[in-house]
Amino acid sequence: MSLVVVGTVAFDAIETPFGKTDKIIGGAATYSGTSAAYFTKNIKLVSVVGDDFPLDMIGEFKRMGMATDGLQIKNGQKTFFWSGRYHVDMNTRDTLDTQLNVLLDFDPVIPDSYQDCEFLMLSNLMPQLQKKVIERIHKRPKLIVMDTMNFWMETQWDALMDTIKLVDVLTVNDSEARQLTHEYSLVKAAQKILRMGPKYLIIKKGEHGALLFHKDQVFFAPALPLEDVFDPTGAGDSFAGGFIGYLAQTRDVSFGNMKRGIIYGSAMASFCVEKFGLERLIALKQDEIDERVQEFVDLVQFDIALV
Amino acid sequence: MSLVVVGTVAFDAIETPFGKTDKIIGGAATYSGTSAAYFTKNIKLVSVVGDDFPLDMIGEFKRMGMATDGLQIKNGQKTFFWSGRYHVDMNTRDTLDTQLNVLLDFDPVIPDSYQDCEFLMLSNLMPQLQKKVIERIHKRPKLIVMDTMNFWMETQWDALMDTIKLVDVLTVNDSEARQLTHEYSLVKAAQKILRMGPKYLIIKKGEHGALLFHKDQVFFAPALPLEDVFDPTGAGDSFAGGFIGYLAQTRDVSFGNMKRGIIYGSAMASFCVEKFGLERLIALKQDEIDERVQEFVDLVQFDIALV
Repeated sequence: MSLVVVGTVAFDAIETPFGKTDKIIGGAATYSGTSAAYFTKNIKLVSVVGDDFPLDMIGEFKRMGMATDGLQIKNGQKTFFWSGRYHVDMNTRDTLDTQLNVLLDFDPVIPDSYQDCEFLMLSNLMPQLQKKVIERIHKRPKLIVMDTMNFWMETQWDALMDTIKLVDVLTVNDSEARQLTHEYSLVKAAQKILRMGPKYLIIKKGEHGALLFHKDQVFFAPALPLEDVFDPTGAGDSFAGGFIGYLAQTRDVSFGNMKRGIIYGSAMASFCVEKFGLERLIALKQDEIDERVQEFVDLVQFDIALV
Repeated sequence: MSLVVVGTVAFDAIETPFGKTDKIIGGAATYSGTSAAYFTKNIKLVSVVGDDFPLDMIGEFKRMGMATDGLQIKNGQKTFFWSGRYHVDMNTRDTLDTQLNVLLDFDPVIPDSYQDCEFLMLSNLMPQLQKKVIERIHKRPKLIVMDTMNFWMETQWDALMDTIKLVDVLTVNDSEARQLTHEYSLVKAAQKILRMGPKYLIIKKGEHGALLFHKDQVFFAPALPLEDVFDPTGAGDSFAGGFIGYLAQTRDVSFGNMKRGIIYGSAMASFCVEKFGLERLIALKQDEIDERVQEFVDLVQFDIALV
């Protein structure tokens, strides 16, 4: 079995109230894959970069346990680039520049060696490309998790709806859940989204935690209160990567195990935001992850025994 | 032993996206006392109203278990009146009208029968009046909980600081915690506030739950995801009333018991917002409260056993 991670591998340039970076490695699949690699070593990457992308980093992906046969390198073309500036609240940001480059005509290739895919992470990407990946994997994976964003709701509504109905778990943030349903109440929004196809919905609320909905069940995971959020870039992708990585490791897709997966995902996101870019996420030790998860346990545990 | 609840008893007129009310009964002490009365019957009210206040309601306070010897009725004067309009997000509101009336020269009286006070709830009020109450209770209560608001930070800073340092537990909302400390990070804000005197700090985040800080410990309680928040008026006071009511009932002021108290307080707040004003809060049955608390348990419980 394997975990296939699809999405962007990119360059980012980021400004936050704490400072700014030059071009650094980013991208949804980069964060998701790096986070998942702490849980399972059989990860297979589907993405595209230009020949300006450092080969060192591709070596690093392999070292972390990611196969890169599905990572296309386009000669004479440039890697996707995004630049943004976060506001003081760290929840809102302005996009300063987007250069699609290799993404413009990206056609995801699924190598034969990827056909054992049991867990599929569709990180944020054009919904029609996410759908192509689902179609190109011959045997339906045990679990398909899809992330998306407001931009596709505004520009690719029909393609988004076509893709959403094929997945098991959809992850969106709170404002995207509202935008997708025209409901302010997240409970009502969740009910509507679950009728669009996904069996599970995760609503990410940033510093306010995350909600998991399934039928009439709901689970809430807090975010860890942090002294400083240094750079939120990649937090949602690290969350999703930790979530599906934990499920792939344990090979258990029950609601109870998804709750644990959300705690692990939240722990990974809490590391991601502590430094710029991948810096913190790429250099974690297992005992740091265990300690962080214990902080989540301590944060919310209380004992009320009702009869 | 008794629980003394100090604060406003008022008329409110409320507009929300769901409708509007004429003058209805409100006030911080009304909500706190009503909420606490589900946990302990030895409650003693300190407040002031005009002779326009319905005697029926004072009878209702007594029926709920509140002594009203400390509730002054000022002949020829009018009860405090507040009117406000909530925005669509229900987290922000505009004050349309404030008529202080009897509050203008309110001098809180502590009857002799109140001197057995063991738990003291200082609901939102001018900080110098909150301080007077502390001074007029001869034997220092086992636990003093104080609520306050941004208005006093802007107009009564010194009096506020003088009062804050006398209490055990301070409750503020997230924006007030930031305003009090000029720190955006709630973790840093909490550290500063705990240095101002209180041993415990509760930061209320509305629909995003509540945080309890004590020394290096932190506990997070979620808010229940609701289909609709009908009217947020009194939610914070119902929360505080449930919290101190539960502590008074159990006579246990340990950190572990405060965590339980916060869950009970959160449950009471979740009822409060389901209808306008006191309507829902005043008519609860014990098994509804138990069921609601069980929903909180189900909402956050997960089993991760780390070695």
